[in-house]
Amino acid sequence: MQKVFAMTFDPSTLTYNDAGLIPAIAQDATSGEVLMMAWMNAEAVAKTLETGRVTYWSRSRQSFWIKGESSGHVQELVDFRVDCDRDCLLVTVNQTGAACHTNRRTCFYTAVRQGDEVELMKPME
Amino acid sequence: MQKVFAMTFDPSTLTYNDAGLIPAIAQDATSGEVLMMAWMNAEAVAKTLETGRVTYWSRSRQSFWIKGESSGHVQELVDFRVDCDRDCLLVTVNQTGAACHTNRRTCFYTAVRQGDEVELMKPME
Repeated sequence: MQKVFAMTFDPSTLTYNDAGLIPAIAQDATSGEVLMMAWMNAEAVAKTLETGRVTYWSRSRQSFWIKGESSGHVQELVDFRVDCDRDCLLVTVNQTGAACHTNRRTCFYTAVRQGDEVELMKPME
Repeated sequence: MQKVFAMTFDPSTLTYNDAGLIPAIAQDATSGEVLMMAWMNAEAVAKTLETGRVTYWSRSRQSFWIKGESSGHVQELVDFRVDCDRDCLLVTVNQTGAACHTNRRTCFYTAVRQGDEVELMKPME
């Protein structure tokens, strides 16, 4: 869905690291589950806001990563938040399927409890 | 509270950036609200697990930052999670008072909606 409005928010006012990137946390808008953390550059921020489809910058591929473009596991943007230092983003999303490339709902499926690693969930069917 | 167990989890198995740091997202264990994102080094990870008090590494002060040590706004560790790539952490916490240095509950109090920045909450009394 293309948004039609004049954007006064300027992605260049955010604070990016030396590689021009800012961390973006994705949270399920309904369950509140933290799904993943990935990185955006200023253009990915603009694309995310303009298209309503969460778009990261892939550090490994050095290219835009429209989440779900190949897997179908898209993230529809519900709300876009900036933190107090303007150096971290929180996007709340409607997540289709698994957020994690291991086909688990969330990337944070490993806990450390009593000093041991525990796997909290299996890949989705 | 000092935990008494033999820890098999080894913080050195996590993936740190060039500065030896890993991002850690803090989430309220009860409400699910994402409170803040800060950084840990391997020793801060160990301290967090050993003491049950969330401890970051302050990049500005270049020192350990036991959250709430000066403000009283402590984060009691509830669960410690590692993501699929082992390069991001999620800590669920019992947060006393405000997580944000602006005295707001969360650092993510600014939304971008219809292209404009909107302040979602005021500082706590």
